[in-house]
Amino acid sequence: MQFTTDEFAKSATKGSFIRRMFEKGIELKAQYGEDAVCDFSLGNPDLPPPAAAKEALEKIASAAVAPYGLGYCPNAGIPQARAAIAAQLSKEQGVAISRDGIVLTVGAAGGIVCVFRAIVSPGDEIIVPSPYFVEYGNYCGHFGGVLKPVPSKPDFSLDLAAIEAAICSRTRAVLVNSPNNPTGAIYSAEEIDALSGLVERENARRAAKGERALVLISDEPYRAFAYDGAQVPSILGTCRHAIVVGSFSKTLSMAGERIGYVVPSPAISEGDGGALVSTLVLVNRTLGFVNAPVLGQRLAAAICGEKVDVSIYERRRALMAEVLDGAGIDYTMPKGAFYFFPAAPGGDDVKFVDALLRERILAVPGSGFGRAGHIRLSYSVEDAVIVRSAAGFKRAAEACR
Amino acid sequence: MQFTTDEFAKSATKGSFIRRMFEKGIELKAQYGEDAVCDFSLGNPDLPPPAAAKEALEKIASAAVAPYGLGYCPNAGIPQARAAIAAQLSKEQGVAISRDGIVLTVGAAGGIVCVFRAIVSPGDEIIVPSPYFVEYGNYCGHFGGVLKPVPSKPDFSLDLAAIEAAICSRTRAVLVNSPNNPTGAIYSAEEIDALSGLVERENARRAAKGERALVLISDEPYRAFAYDGAQVPSILGTCRHAIVVGSFSKTLSMAGERIGYVVPSPAISEGDGGALVSTLVLVNRTLGFVNAPVLGQRLAAAICGEKVDVSIYERRRALMAEVLDGAGIDYTMPKGAFYFFPAAPGGDDVKFVDALLRERILAVPGSGFGRAGHIRLSYSVEDAVIVRSAAGFKRAAEACR
Repeated sequence: MQFTTDEFAKSATKGSFIRRMFEKGIELKAQYGEDAVCDFSLGNPDLPPPAAAKEALEKIASAAVAPYGLGYCPNAGIPQARAAIAAQLSKEQGVAISRDGIVLTVGAAGGIVCVFRAIVSPGDEIIVPSPYFVEYGNYCGHFGGVLKPVPSKPDFSLDLAAIEAAICSRTRAVLVNSPNNPTGAIYSAEEIDALSGLVERENARRAAKGERALVLISDEPYRAFAYDGAQVPSILGTCRHAIVVGSFSKTLSMAGERIGYVVPSPAISEGDGGALVSTLVLVNRTLGFVNAPVLGQRLAAAICGEKVDVSIYERRRALMAEVLDGAGIDYTMPKGAFYFFPAAPGGDDVKFVDALLRERILAVPGSGFGRAGHIRLSYSVEDAVIVRSAAGFKRAAEACR
Repeated sequence: MQFTTDEFAKSATKGSFIRRMFEKGIELKAQYGEDAVCDFSLGNPDLPPPAAAKEALEKIASAAVAPYGLGYCPNAGIPQARAAIAAQLSKEQGVAISRDGIVLTVGAAGGIVCVFRAIVSPGDEIIVPSPYFVEYGNYCGHFGGVLKPVPSKPDFSLDLAAIEAAICSRTRAVLVNSPNNPTGAIYSAEEIDALSGLVERENARRAAKGERALVLISDEPYRAFAYDGAQVPSILGTCRHAIVVGSFSKTLSMAGERIGYVVPSPAISEGDGGALVSTLVLVNRTLGFVNAPVLGQRLAAAICGEKVDVSIYERRRALMAEVLDGAGIDYTMPKGAFYFFPAAPGGDDVKFVDALLRERILAVPGSGFGRAGHIRLSYSVEDAVIVRSAAGFKRAAEACR
C-alpha cells in the first residue's frame, strides 16, 4: 500500500547528486581503500574544532548532568547563548544586534526553513542567483514557494540587471549566499550596495501600495572563509529589509551538532513591532525544531569568537588551483568558502564526473547546482589528497576534450 | 510593512496557554521569589540525567574535538547510534527493529513533523483522541493536514466506536499518545488490540480499492513512565501499519538536546520496499533538520538502556493525589507520564487557573488541550513544591465552587 504522499511516492528513491556521490565514494573506498580515492564531493569540514572547544566541552559536559542541565530552553535559545552570539555577530556585521534580535536555530538549514515558513505563501517566488545550493528549492518548496534562478555573470558575480528584471509582484525574497557554495564567489561591497538599493527601491514602491515587503535573505555559513584579504560585506549594514542566516557548522567545524541563527535587520524589528522575530520563534517551535540543541548552543556561545585555521583552506585552494592548471581546466579563482566550480573539459559535466570517477576522483556535476558544464570540487580534504589527484585530473580532462 | 504571511501576521503574537503560563511564572518568581511559587505548568523533566551520562559525556567531549568529531553524519543518524538505539527499542517494543529501520530525529517533535510531511496531503485528516497535546495541530497544519479530535471516555480511555465512526476517506492517520499528555492515561493491551484491528480492517478495505493506507501513529515519549506496574503495550507488535515516534527527552532528562526517533512497523518497510523510510530520511534532510545533533546522538546511544529514577515521579504522583484529595478536587488517577488532568471545581478551567494564580500556583487550562473544564498539572517538580501547594489548592477550589 502507499504510505507517502504522491509527491514522495514518485521522488523519494531518487537521491541528490551529492548523496549519490557520497554513496559511490563509500563503495570505491571499500573496494580500493581509503587512500586510493580522492573525494572532493562533500562540504563536511575536515578540520578539528578550534583548540578552545576541548575545555569548553568538558565544562559543558560536567554541567549537563545537573538537573535541567540538558532540559528544554526558550524556543529562541538559551538567553546567555543568544547574548554571547549576538555580541559576536554585532562585531562581524558592524551593526548592533541585541540578544532578543537573534533566534538560534537547528543549523543554518533549519534557520532558512523557518524564514521560508514565516514569509512564504504558496506561489511566492524566491529569486536566487545561479548556480546555487540546490536544497534551497526543497526548503521553500515545502511551503509552496518556487525558486526562480537568475544566472550570475560568467565570473559568478551578481547580474543585477537580470535580478531587477526578474522581480515581480510574486517575488517574496531574493536569496544570496556569499561566500558562495558552489562557486566560492564573494559579492563585493559594490554588488551588495547595488542589490540593497534595488530591494529598497522596490520596497518603497510596495510600501506606497500597501504591499508586503520584498526580503533580502543572506545565507552566510562561510562568512569566515575569505582569502587574499577579501571582505564579506555586511548586508544588515546596508539593507533595511534583510535577514541574515548563518551557522557555526563551518567556522567551528561542528556541522553535525546543528547550531545556526537567524538575524533580521534591526530596522525590520522596529518597523513591525517584533512580529517577524515572534513568528520565527513560533515556527522554530511548531516545525518541531523546538530549540537548537543545548549542548551545541553552549559550545557555540563559549567559543564563537574563535574559528578554525582558515589559512589551511587557503593553502589547499592554492594546491587545487595548481592541479587544475596542470590539467588545463578553466576556472574562476574562488575568493571564499572551500569550493572550486571549474568548467568541465568538453562541456559535459556529467561525462567529466564519470571520467573522474574512473580515476577514483569524486566530484559533483554542476547540473546539481543549476549550472551544467561545470563541476563542484570541495577542497575540505587533506593536502595530500589534492596533490595525489593531479594525474587523474589530467587524464580525465584529456579523455573528455 | 508586512514581512510574515497573512496567517502569521494575524496569529504570531498570541502565544500558547503553556507559553503564557511560562511567562507568568517568570514574572511571579521575579516578584515573590522562586520559593513562593508552585509551578505545575511545564513538562520539563527536573531530574538530572542518569548517573551514567557523566562518564559518557566526558568521553564524547574528548572525541568531539577530533577532525569530523562534530561533523555531518548520514541524514538518518550515526550508524552506530542507530544500531544501539534500534537494539534498545527492539527490547522495549518486543519486535526486531533493524538499524536501517529507524530514523533519528530532532526530538519526537521533529520526528512527528517528518512523519506528517511524508504522509499528509492538504485536506487530510488526522484523528486524535482528545484531550491531546495541542502542538499536533500545528505540526500537521504546516502541510495542510487537519486535526480531527475525537473525545475519549470520561476516564480518558479510548472511545473506539467514536474513532471508528470518525474514519472516512480523508482520514490519513490516527495519532495516539500513551502514556498520555495531558491525562496520564495508558491505553491497555485490549484498547491497542482493538484499535489495531480497526486500522487493519480499514486497510483491508482500502487495499482492495487501491487506496492509500491508514496509518496508526503512536507518540511515546513517556513510555518509561508507567506506575503501579502498568504496561505500555507495543503498537509495532500488534499493528502492521503503525509508526512509532519517541524520544529520550523524558527518559534520559535531555529534552533540550533534541534526540528522537521514528520507527515504522517492519511490515510497512517490507510492503513498500523501504519507500517510507527513504522519504522520512529525505524530509528530515530537506526540512532543515539535516541530522539529529551528533553530541546528543552519541549520548543517547551510550546510555539508552538507562533511565531516570521513575520511582521519584511515582512518589510525587502520590503526593499530588493527596493534595487534590485534600482540596476535594476530582481526578482520574493517571497511570503514566507526569501529569494530572483533574476537573476544575466549578467547571470553568480558565477561572480556576486564575484562582490558582492568585495563590501563586501555575497550571494550564484544559482548554489548551482541547478539553475545557479540566486543568493540567505537571508533577515534574520537587516534592516540597507539591506539599507546599496544598493550602493554595484548597482555597482556590473553595473560591471557585
